[in-house]
Amino acid sequence: MGFVHIYTGNGRGKTTAAIGLAIRAAGAGFKVAIIQFLKGMEYSEVKALKSISSIELYQYGRKCFIRSAPEKEDIEIAQKGISLAEKLIKSGKYRLVILDEINVAIYFGLISTARVLNIVKNRPENVDILLTGRYAPKELIDLADLVTEMVEIKHYYRKGIKGRKGFEY
Amino acid sequence: MGFVHIYTGNGRGKTTAAIGLAIRAAGAGFKVAIIQFLKGMEYSEVKALKSISSIELYQYGRKCFIRSAPEKEDIEIAQKGISLAEKLIKSGKYRLVILDEINVAIYFGLISTARVLNIVKNRPENVDILLTGRYAPKELIDLADLVTEMVEIKHYYRKGIKGRKGFEY
Repeated sequence: MGFVHIYTGNGRGKTTAAIGLAIRAAGAGFKVAIIQFLKGMEYSEVKALKSISSIELYQYGRKCFIRSAPEKEDIEIAQKGISLAEKLIKSGKYRLVILDEINVAIYFGLISTARVLNIVKNRPENVDILLTGRYAPKELIDLADLVTEMVEIKHYYRKGIKGRKGFEY
Repeated sequence: MGFVHIYTGNGRGKTTAAIGLAIRAAGAGFKVAIIQFLKGMEYSEVKALKSISSIELYQYGRKCFIRSAPEKEDIEIAQKGISLAEKLIKSGKYRLVILDEINVAIYFGLISTARVLNIVKNRPENVDILLTGRYAPKELIDLADLVTEMVEIKHYYRKGIKGRKGFEY
């Protein structure tokens, strides 16, 4: 039976843990698909994951973050991402499908909660889905089997330190 | 400047996020050492990480978990692990050193807080250290630059479901 996992909250470690779960699943011989929303940058993890053949990674975001209101292009890209996610999940070929930052894409109105709920509810039996990002909607939390909230207790960002290559990206 | 990171709390995602951070750091071209305390099993992630040459993984635990009081052997193994950790950190050859489940090893009295504090405080300038495990001691939290608490909101363990290969191990 496939489960629904959510990593949410304001703390560091959501995408990081998603990558870790992908590695663990790959190590067990499973096929994994990661679809990253809102991200189009060549992060360090993208490079490392490319060397593992059983993990496929797709990015559906622009090379910059949405700062305030999303633009038409942001919506179009996110819609393409969720369509691919639906296709990959339905195919049943992936034991684990990770929808990275999808909670934020929902929060910004790029994708509807209803569409994601529908895809998650209708997944094939042996597919786990992991949804990450802050602002996970209540409807998804209610549906999920495992929810971890990453709570920021301390972060060096607060000291004015910027993200460092190899650590934050 | 190297920072001190802690992933603690009762929720899923601490070791998982540590693996993800190792992958990201490796993707940026850094050398990474992971020392796992209390763990001696061939987890799925161990297999996958072995394929990445810039990540070294060492295990200092027995093939079973400590259920109640630790035995002499548990202490000896953990002491070997912390000695190796000290050596690897001092060498300055690793941009990131991960001490996985060390907080739990401290909690069980296998290693003293004082020893870990001393090692962390005296790290070379360009070494980040990540300490994981529930029960992180206050002295380490005070010292850390980044602390995330993984809070369990929901877990399928509560429904009586056991750990699944590729997901929990």
